[in-house]
Amino acid sequence: MDQQSMKQEAAKRAAALVENNMLVGLGTGSTAAFFIEYLAQRVQEEDLFLRCVATSSRSREQAYELGLTVLDELPPEAIHITVDGADEIDPQLNLIKGLGGALLMEKLVAVQTEQEIIIADESKLVEELGSKNPLPVEVIPFGWQSTEKRLADIGLKCNLRRNGEKPYVTDMHHYILDCTAGAKQNMAHLAESIKKIPGVVDHGLFLGLAKRAIVASSQGIVEMTR
Amino acid sequence: MDQQSMKQEAAKRAAALVENNMLVGLGTGSTAAFFIEYLAQRVQEEDLFLRCVATSSRSREQAYELGLTVLDELPPEAIHITVDGADEIDPQLNLIKGLGGALLMEKLVAVQTEQEIIIADESKLVEELGSKNPLPVEVIPFGWQSTEKRLADIGLKCNLRRNGEKPYVTDMHHYILDCTAGAKQNMAHLAESIKKIPGVVDHGLFLGLAKRAIVASSQGIVEMTR
Repeated sequence: MDQQSMKQEAAKRAAALVENNMLVGLGTGSTAAFFIEYLAQRVQEEDLFLRCVATSSRSREQAYELGLTVLDELPPEAIHITVDGADEIDPQLNLIKGLGGALLMEKLVAVQTEQEIIIADESKLVEELGSKNPLPVEVIPFGWQSTEKRLADIGLKCNLRRNGEKPYVTDMHHYILDCTAGAKQNMAHLAESIKKIPGVVDHGLFLGLAKRAIVASSQGIVEMTR
Repeated sequence: MDQQSMKQEAAKRAAALVENNMLVGLGTGSTAAFFIEYLAQRVQEEDLFLRCVATSSRSREQAYELGLTVLDELPPEAIHITVDGADEIDPQLNLIKGLGGALLMEKLVAVQTEQEIIIADESKLVEELGSKNPLPVEVIPFGWQSTEKRLADIGLKCNLRRNGEKPYVTDMHHYILDCTAGAKQNMAHLAESIKKIPGVVDHGLFLGLAKRAIVASSQGIVEMTR
Protein backbone atom coordinates (compact mmCIF):
# COMPACT_ATOMS: atom_id res chain seq x y z
CA MET A 1 0.00 0.00 0.00
CA ASP A 2 1.37 3.45 -0.84
CA GLN A 3 1.26 6.34 1.62
CA GLN A 4 -1.87 7.90 0.12
CA SER A 5 -3.79 4.63 0.35
CA MET A 6 -2.62 4.15 3.93
CA LYS A 7 -3.88 7.59 4.91
CA GLN A 8 -7.20 6.85 3.21
CA GLU A 9 -7.53 3.53 4.96
CA ALA A 10 -6.97 5.09 8.41
CA ALA A 11 -9.36 7.93 7.59
CA LYS A 12 -12.10 5.52 6.50
CA ARG A 13 -11.78 3.54 9.74
CA ALA A 14 -12.10 6.72 11.78
CA ALA A 15 -15.13 7.92 9.83
CA ALA A 16 -16.87 4.66 10.71
CA LEU A 17 -16.60 5.56 14.43
CA VAL A 18 -18.80 8.64 14.17
CA GLU A 19 -22.40 8.19 15.33
CA ASN A 20 -25.58 10.07 14.59
CA ASN A 21 -26.13 13.34 16.55
CA MET A 22 -22.52 13.72 17.52
CA LEU A 23 -20.58 16.96 17.76
CA VAL A 24 -17.49 16.17 15.68
CA GLY A 25 -14.08 17.87 15.65
CA LEU A 26 -12.45 18.02 12.24
CA GLY A 27 -8.67 17.92 12.19
CA THR A 28 -6.33 19.59 9.72
CA GLY A 29 -3.83 18.13 7.26
CA SER A 30 -3.74 15.65 4.42
CA THR A 31 -4.96 12.65 6.46
CA ALA A 32 -7.69 14.65 8.21
CA ALA A 33 -8.82 15.87 4.79
CA PHE A 34 -9.53 12.25 3.78
CA PHE A 35 -11.50 11.82 7.00
CA ILE A 36 -13.65 14.86 6.17
CA GLU A 37 -14.32 13.37 2.73
CA TYR A 38 -15.41 10.00 4.11
CA LEU A 39 -17.45 11.65 6.84
CA ALA A 40 -19.35 13.78 4.32
CA GLN A 41 -19.97 10.64 2.29
CA ARG A 42 -21.44 8.84 5.30
CA VAL A 43 -23.64 11.80 6.19
CA GLN A 44 -25.07 11.84 2.70
CA GLU A 45 -25.54 8.09 2.35
CA GLU A 46 -26.90 7.47 5.83
CA ASP A 47 -28.69 10.78 6.30
CA LEU A 48 -26.87 11.44 9.58
CA PHE A 49 -27.34 14.58 11.64
CA LEU A 50 -23.96 15.90 12.78
CA ARG A 51 -22.59 19.22 13.91
CA CYS A 52 -18.91 19.80 13.22
CA VAL A 53 -16.22 22.19 14.48
CA ALA A 54 -13.16 22.74 12.33
CA THR A 55 -9.58 23.24 13.51
CA SER A 56 -8.59 25.52 10.61
CA SER A 57 -10.08 27.71 7.92
CA ARG A 58 -8.88 25.10 5.41
CA SER A 59 -10.83 22.26 7.01
CA ARG A 60 -13.85 24.49 7.58
CA GLU A 61 -14.01 25.33 3.87
CA GLN A 62 -13.55 21.75 2.77
CA ALA A 63 -16.28 20.54 5.14
CA TYR A 64 -18.62 23.32 4.14
CA GLU A 65 -18.16 22.60 0.45
CA LEU A 66 -18.91 18.92 1.05
CA GLY A 67 -22.19 19.87 2.74
CA LEU A 68 -21.28 19.24 6.39
CA THR A 69 -22.78 21.47 9.08
CA VAL A 70 -19.88 23.46 10.47
CA LEU A 71 -20.36 25.71 13.50
CA ASP A 72 -18.83 29.17 13.30
CA GLU A 73 -17.70 29.10 16.89
CA LEU A 74 -16.45 26.46 19.24
CA PRO A 75 -19.33 25.86 21.68
CA PRO A 76 -18.53 25.29 25.37
CA GLU A 77 -19.97 21.76 25.41
CA ALA A 78 -17.98 18.54 25.13
CA ILE A 79 -17.02 17.43 21.62
CA HIS A 80 -17.91 13.75 21.28
CA ILE A 81 -15.19 12.76 18.86
CA THR A 82 -12.36 14.51 17.05
CA VAL A 83 -10.34 12.95 14.27
CA ASP A 84 -7.04 14.58 13.52
CA GLY A 85 -3.61 13.76 12.12
CA ALA A 86 -0.25 14.10 13.85
CA ASP A 87 3.34 14.68 12.82
CA GLU A 88 4.77 12.27 15.38
CA ILE A 89 3.19 9.63 17.60
CA ASP A 90 5.15 7.99 20.39
CA PRO A 91 4.35 4.60 22.02
CA GLN A 92 2.41 6.36 24.85
CA LEU A 93 0.22 8.15 22.28
CA ASN A 94 1.83 11.49 22.98
CA LEU A 95 2.08 13.64 19.88
CA ILE A 96 3.83 16.43 18.08
CA LYS A 97 1.43 18.44 15.95
CA GLY A 98 1.55 21.75 14.17
CA LEU A 99 3.44 21.20 10.93
CA GLY A 100 0.20 22.15 9.20
CA GLY A 101 0.05 25.41 11.16
CA ALA A 102 -3.18 24.68 13.04
CA LEU A 103 -1.86 23.54 16.41
CA LEU A 104 -3.66 26.13 18.51
CA MET A 105 -7.16 25.41 17.23
CA GLU A 106 -6.35 21.68 17.18
CA LYS A 107 -5.33 21.84 20.82
CA LEU A 108 -8.34 23.89 21.90
CA VAL A 109 -10.58 21.34 20.21
CA ALA A 110 -8.61 18.38 21.62
CA VAL A 111 -8.80 19.53 25.25
CA GLN A 112 -12.58 19.57 25.15
CA THR A 113 -12.95 16.32 23.20
CA GLU A 114 -14.08 13.07 24.78
CA GLN A 115 -12.51 10.79 22.18
CA GLU A 116 -9.50 12.25 20.42
CA ILE A 117 -8.62 9.87 17.59
CA ILE A 118 -5.41 10.22 15.66
CA ILE A 119 -5.14 8.88 12.13
CA ALA A 120 -1.82 8.47 10.39
CA ASP A 121 0.35 6.32 8.21
CA GLU A 122 3.18 4.38 9.82
CA SER A 123 5.81 7.00 8.93
CA LYS A 124 4.51 9.07 11.88
CA LEU A 125 5.44 6.52 14.53
CA VAL A 126 8.53 7.42 16.54
CA GLU A 127 10.20 6.00 19.60
CA GLU A 128 10.82 9.50 20.95
CA LEU A 129 9.05 12.76 20.18
CA GLY A 130 11.19 15.29 18.37
CA SER A 131 13.35 12.71 16.67
CA LYS A 132 12.17 13.53 13.14
CA ASN A 133 10.40 16.88 13.35
CA PRO A 134 10.81 20.24 14.99
CA LEU A 135 8.39 21.22 17.72
CA PRO A 136 6.19 24.10 16.52
CA VAL A 137 5.57 26.87 19.05
CA GLU A 138 2.89 29.48 18.35
CA VAL A 139 3.93 32.97 19.43
CA ILE A 140 2.71 36.57 19.44
CA PRO A 141 4.19 38.45 16.47
CA PHE A 142 4.90 41.52 18.64
CA GLY A 143 8.36 40.94 20.09
CA TRP A 144 8.73 37.45 18.62
CA GLN A 145 12.52 37.74 18.56
CA SER A 146 12.58 38.27 22.31
CA THR A 147 10.27 35.32 22.77
CA GLU A 148 12.71 33.32 20.65
CA LYS A 149 15.51 34.36 23.01
CA ARG A 150 13.48 33.24 26.01
CA LEU A 151 12.95 29.88 24.28
CA ALA A 152 16.70 29.69 23.64
CA ASP A 153 17.20 30.27 27.38
CA ILE A 154 15.43 26.97 28.07
CA GLY A 155 17.52 25.18 25.44
CA LEU A 156 15.43 25.44 22.28
CA LYS A 157 16.86 26.36 18.90
CA CYS A 158 14.12 28.06 16.88
CA ASN A 159 13.44 29.02 13.29
CA LEU A 160 10.69 31.42 12.30
CA ARG A 161 8.38 29.63 9.89
CA ARG A 162 8.07 31.56 6.65
CA ASN A 163 5.70 31.75 3.73
CA GLY A 164 8.08 32.86 1.00
CA GLU A 165 9.80 36.00 2.29
CA LYS A 166 7.23 36.81 4.92
CA PRO A 167 6.54 35.14 8.28
CA TYR A 168 3.86 32.47 8.11
CA VAL A 169 0.75 33.76 9.90
CA THR A 170 -1.68 31.33 11.57
CA ASP A 171 -5.48 31.50 11.38
CA MET A 172 -5.28 33.13 14.83
CA HIS A 173 -2.86 35.89 13.66
CA HIS A 174 0.25 34.47 15.29
CA TYR A 175 3.70 33.34 14.13
CA ILE A 176 5.19 29.87 14.44
CA LEU A 177 8.70 29.10 15.65
CA ASP A 178 9.88 25.62 14.68
CA CYS A 179 12.06 24.53 17.57
CA THR A 180 14.47 21.72 18.28
CA ALA A 181 15.27 20.59 21.78
CA GLY A 182 18.17 18.36 22.70
CA ALA A 183 17.65 14.60 22.95
CA LYS A 184 16.17 12.84 26.02
CA GLN A 185 13.84 15.59 27.12
CA ASN A 186 11.19 15.17 29.78
CA MET A 187 8.31 16.21 27.55
CA ALA A 188 5.87 17.15 30.32
CA HIS A 189 8.46 19.43 31.84
CA LEU A 190 9.35 20.90 28.44
CA ALA A 191 5.68 21.56 27.62
CA GLU A 192 5.19 23.39 30.90
CA SER A 193 8.36 25.45 30.54
CA ILE A 194 7.38 26.57 27.04
CA LYS A 195 3.79 27.55 27.86
CA LYS A 196 5.01 29.66 30.80
CA ILE A 197 7.02 32.00 28.60
CA PRO A 198 5.54 35.44 27.87
CA GLY A 199 4.76 35.68 24.17
CA VAL A 200 4.07 31.95 23.80
CA VAL A 201 0.46 31.13 22.98
CA ASP A 202 0.77 27.34 22.79
CA HIS A 203 2.95 24.55 21.42
CA GLY A 204 2.69 21.35 19.42
CA LEU A 205 3.18 18.88 22.26
CA PHE A 206 -0.10 17.01 22.79
CA LEU A 207 0.49 14.97 25.91
CA GLY A 208 -2.20 12.68 27.27
CA LEU A 209 -4.82 14.03 24.89
CA ALA A 210 -5.17 11.26 22.30
CA LYS A 211 -7.22 8.24 23.34
CA ARG A 212 -6.63 6.14 20.26
CA ALA A 213 -4.51 6.09 17.12
CA ILE A 214 -5.41 4.36 13.89
CA VAL A 215 -2.20 3.79 12.01
CA ALA A 216 -2.13 2.33 8.53
CA SER A 217 0.95 0.38 7.51
CA SER A 218 1.81 -1.78 4.52
CA GLN A 219 0.84 -4.75 6.75
CA GLY A 220 -2.60 -3.30 7.48
CA ILE A 221 -4.19 -1.18 10.19
CA VAL A 222 -2.66 -1.02 13.67
CA GLU A 223 -4.70 0.43 16.50
CA MET A 224 -3.17 1.92 19.61
CA THR A 225 -5.24 2.88 22.65
CA ARG A 226 -4.50 4.47 25.96
CA MET B 1 -4.25 68.32 44.09
CA ASP B 2 -6.97 66.70 41.98
CA GLN B 3 -6.50 63.31 40.32
CA GLN B 4 -5.58 64.78 36.92
CA SER B 5 -2.87 66.95 38.40
CA MET B 6 -1.52 64.02 40.40
CA LYS B 7 -1.24 61.92 37.26
CA GLN B 8 0.51 64.79 35.48
CA GLU B 9 2.93 65.26 38.34
CA ALA B 10 3.94 61.59 38.35
CA ALA B 11 4.24 61.59 34.55
CA LYS B 12 6.48 64.65 34.57
CA ARG B 13 8.80 63.06 37.13
CA ALA B 14 9.09 59.94 35.01
CA ALA B 15 9.77 61.90 31.83
CA ALA B 16 12.74 63.52 33.61
CA LEU B 17 14.35 60.06 34.03
CA VAL B 18 14.74 59.45 30.31
CA GLU B 19 18.21 60.04 28.90
CA ASN B 20 19.48 60.75 25.43
CA ASN B 21 19.86 57.75 23.07
CA MET B 22 17.59 55.50 25.12
CA LEU B 23 15.15 52.95 23.75
CA VAL B 24 11.95 53.88 25.60
CA GLY B 25 8.81 51.82 26.22
CA LEU B 26 5.60 53.82 26.14
CA GLY B 27 2.81 52.59 28.39
CA THR B 28 -0.92 52.81 27.78
CA GLY B 29 -3.67 54.60 29.69
CA SER B 30 -4.47 58.08 30.93
CA THR B 31 -1.34 58.47 33.11
CA ALA B 32 0.96 57.04 30.45
CA ALA B 33 -0.59 59.46 27.96
CA PHE B 34 0.64 62.37 30.10
CA PHE B 35 4.10 60.79 30.14
CA ILE B 36 4.13 60.62 26.34
CA GLU B 37 3.19 64.31 26.22
CA TYR B 38 5.99 65.37 28.58
CA LEU B 39 8.47 63.10 26.83
CA ALA B 40 7.68 64.62 23.44
CA GLN B 41 8.09 68.06 24.99
CA ARG B 42 11.54 67.17 26.33
CA VAL B 43 12.62 65.69 23.01
CA GLN B 44 11.66 68.90 21.25
CA GLU B 45 13.13 71.29 23.80
CA GLU B 46 16.36 69.39 24.41
CA ASP B 47 16.78 67.94 20.94
CA LEU B 48 17.07 64.40 22.32
CA PHE B 49 17.50 61.33 20.14
CA LEU B 50 15.18 58.57 21.34
CA ARG B 51 13.64 55.49 19.83
CA CYS B 52 10.31 54.42 21.32
CA VAL B 53 8.20 51.25 21.33
CA ALA B 54 4.51 51.56 22.10
CA THR B 55 2.35 49.11 24.06
CA SER B 56 -0.85 49.84 22.11
CA SER B 57 -2.05 51.31 18.86
CA ARG B 58 -3.45 54.20 20.91
CA SER B 59 -0.09 55.12 22.42
CA ARG B 60 1.66 54.57 19.11
CA GLU B 61 -0.63 57.08 17.40
CA GLN B 62 -0.33 59.63 20.16
CA ALA B 63 3.48 59.38 20.16
CA TYR B 64 3.65 59.52 16.40
CA GLU B 65 1.47 62.63 16.25
CA LEU B 66 3.67 64.32 18.85
CA GLY B 67 6.71 63.70 16.68
CA LEU B 68 8.36 60.85 18.63
CA THR B 69 10.22 58.14 16.72
CA VAL B 70 8.15 55.00 17.21
CA LEU B 71 9.45 51.64 15.98
CA ASP B 72 6.97 49.46 14.10
CA GLU B 73 8.23 46.30 15.73
CA LEU B 74 9.57 45.40 19.12
CA PRO B 75 13.31 44.83 18.58
CA PRO B 76 15.05 41.99 20.43
CA GLU B 77 17.38 44.29 22.34
CA ALA B 78 16.88 45.48 25.93
CA ILE B 79 14.55 48.44 26.42
CA HIS B 80 16.31 50.94 28.69
CA ILE B 81 13.28 52.38 30.39
CA THR B 82 9.53 51.88 30.18
CA VAL B 83 7.00 54.15 31.83
CA ASP B 84 3.54 52.72 32.25
CA GLY B 85 0.50 53.02 34.48
CA ALA B 86 -1.13 50.32 36.61
CA ASP B 87 -4.58 49.55 37.94
CA GLU B 88 -3.32 48.30 41.30
CA ILE B 89 0.05 48.50 43.01
CA ASP B 90 0.79 46.49 46.16
CA PRO B 91 3.52 47.26 48.74
CA GLN B 92 5.95 44.83 47.01
CA LEU B 93 5.46 46.67 43.68
CA ASN B 94 3.48 43.83 42.19
CA LEU B 95 0.76 45.04 39.85
CA ILE B 96 -2.55 44.38 38.23
CA LYS B 97 -2.71 45.83 34.74
CA GLY B 98 -5.00 45.44 31.77
CA LEU B 99 -8.04 47.58 32.44
CA GLY B 100 -6.98 49.59 29.39
CA GLY B 101 -6.88 46.42 27.29
CA ALA B 102 -3.15 46.48 26.49
CA LEU B 103 -1.81 43.97 29.01
CA LEU B 104 -0.18 41.63 26.50
CA MET B 105 1.92 44.25 24.73
CA GLU B 106 2.61 45.93 28.08
CA LYS B 107 3.89 42.66 29.49
CA LEU B 108 6.01 41.81 26.46
CA VAL B 109 7.60 45.24 26.72
CA ALA B 110 7.99 44.99 30.50
CA VAL B 111 9.80 41.64 30.44
CA GLN B 112 12.54 43.03 28.22
CA THR B 113 12.83 46.36 30.03
CA GLU B 114 15.74 47.22 32.32
CA GLN B 115 13.89 49.88 34.32
CA GLU B 116 10.14 49.42 34.45
CA ILE B 117 8.72 52.55 36.07
CA ILE B 118 5.10 52.73 37.14
CA ILE B 119 3.37 56.08 37.41
CA ALA B 120 0.06 56.49 39.18
CA ASP B 121 -2.03 58.53 41.52
CA GLU B 122 -2.53 57.29 45.08
CA SER B 123 -5.91 55.69 44.31
CA LYS B 124 -3.99 52.78 42.73
CA LEU B 125 -2.25 51.72 45.92
CA VAL B 126 -3.72 48.59 47.52
CA GLU B 127 -2.70 46.36 50.38
CA GLU B 128 -3.61 43.28 48.37
CA LEU B 129 -3.91 42.80 44.61
CA GLY B 130 -7.42 42.14 43.40
CA SER B 131 -9.08 44.03 46.21
CA LYS B 132 -10.51 46.76 43.98
CA ASN B 133 -10.26 45.50 40.40
CA PRO B 134 -10.82 42.32 38.47
CA LEU B 135 -7.81 40.55 37.01
CA PRO B 136 -7.89 40.76 33.20
CA VAL B 137 -6.97 37.57 31.35
CA GLU B 138 -6.32 37.71 27.61
CA VAL B 139 -7.70 34.68 25.77
CA ILE B 140 -8.06 33.23 22.27
CA PRO B 141 -11.54 34.04 20.89
CA PHE B 142 -11.91 30.51 19.46
CA GLY B 143 -13.42 28.45 22.28
CA TRP B 144 -13.30 31.28 24.83
CA GLN B 145 -16.25 29.84 26.75
CA SER B 146 -14.34 26.63 27.35
CA THR B 147 -11.32 28.63 28.44
CA GLU B 148 -13.63 30.46 30.84
CA LYS B 149 -14.72 27.08 32.25
CA ARG B 150 -11.10 26.06 32.75
CA LEU B 151 -10.51 29.34 34.60
CA ALA B 152 -13.58 28.60 36.73
CA ASP B 153 -12.01 25.22 37.55
CA ILE B 154 -9.15 27.04 39.28
CA GLY B 155 -11.56 29.28 41.17
CA LEU B 156 -11.91 32.33 38.95
CA LYS B 157 -15.24 33.98 38.18
CA CYS B 158 -14.95 35.62 34.77
CA ASN B 159 -16.84 38.15 32.69
CA LEU B 160 -16.23 38.63 29.00
CA ARG B 161 -15.27 42.27 28.44
CA ARG B 162 -17.57 43.88 25.91
CA ASN B 163 -17.56 46.88 23.66
CA GLY B 164 -21.28 47.59 23.44
CA GLU B 165 -22.93 44.36 22.32
CA LYS B 166 -19.79 42.79 20.91
CA PRO B 167 -16.78 41.29 22.67
CA TYR B 168 -13.95 43.76 23.17
CA VAL B 169 -11.07 42.81 20.86
CA THR B 170 -7.47 43.62 21.79
CA ASP B 171 -4.82 45.02 19.43
CA MET B 172 -3.58 41.42 19.18
CA HIS B 173 -7.00 40.04 18.11
CA HIS B 174 -7.88 38.41 21.43
CA TYR B 175 -10.69 38.69 23.97
CA ILE B 176 -10.39 39.72 27.60
CA LEU B 177 -12.02 37.94 30.53
CA ASP B 178 -12.21 40.10 33.65
CA CYS B 179 -11.80 37.64 36.51
CA THR B 180 -12.17 37.72 40.25
CA ALA B 181 -10.36 35.29 42.52
CA GLY B 182 -11.17 34.70 46.15
CA ALA B 183 -9.32 36.66 48.83
CA LYS B 184 -5.84 35.72 50.14
CA GLN B 185 -4.46 34.25 46.95
CA ASN B 186 -0.86 33.32 46.45
CA MET B 187 -0.36 35.54 43.40
CA ALA B 188 2.70 33.75 42.00
CA HIS B 189 0.84 30.47 42.11
CA LEU B 190 -2.28 32.03 40.60
CA ALA B 191 -0.27 33.62 37.77
CA GLU B 192 1.32 30.30 36.93
CA SER B 193 -1.96 28.38 37.04
CA ILE B 194 -3.63 30.87 34.70
CA LYS B 195 -0.87 30.99 32.09
CA LYS B 196 -0.83 27.17 31.92
CA ILE B 197 -4.39 26.95 30.68
CA PRO B 198 -4.93 26.26 26.96
CA GLY B 199 -6.56 29.29 25.38
CA VAL B 200 -4.94 31.75 27.78
CA VAL B 201 -2.44 34.10 26.14
CA ASP B 202 -1.45 36.10 29.21
CA HIS B 203 -2.87 37.85 32.28
CA GLY B 204 -2.68 41.17 34.09
CA LEU B 205 -0.54 40.06 37.03
CA PHE B 206 2.85 41.78 36.74
CA LEU B 207 4.93 40.21 39.48
CA GLY B 208 8.50 41.30 40.09
CA LEU B 209 8.61 43.37 36.90
CA ALA B 210 8.36 46.94 38.19
CA LYS B 211 11.55 48.43 39.64
CA ARG B 212 10.09 51.71 40.80
CA ALA B 213 6.74 53.43 41.24
CA ILE B 214 6.17 57.17 41.22
CA VAL B 215 2.92 57.78 43.02
CA ALA B 216 1.41 61.24 43.29
CA SER B 217 -0.77 61.95 46.30
CA SER B 218 -2.34 65.07 47.70
CA GLN B 219 0.70 65.24 50.02
CA GLY B 220 3.14 65.13 47.14
CA ILE B 221 5.12 62.48 45.28
CA VAL B 222 5.92 59.15 46.92
CA GLU B 223 8.55 56.91 45.37
CA MET B 224 8.66 53.18 45.90
CA THR B 225 11.59 51.04 44.74
CA ARG B 226 12.37 47.39 44.80
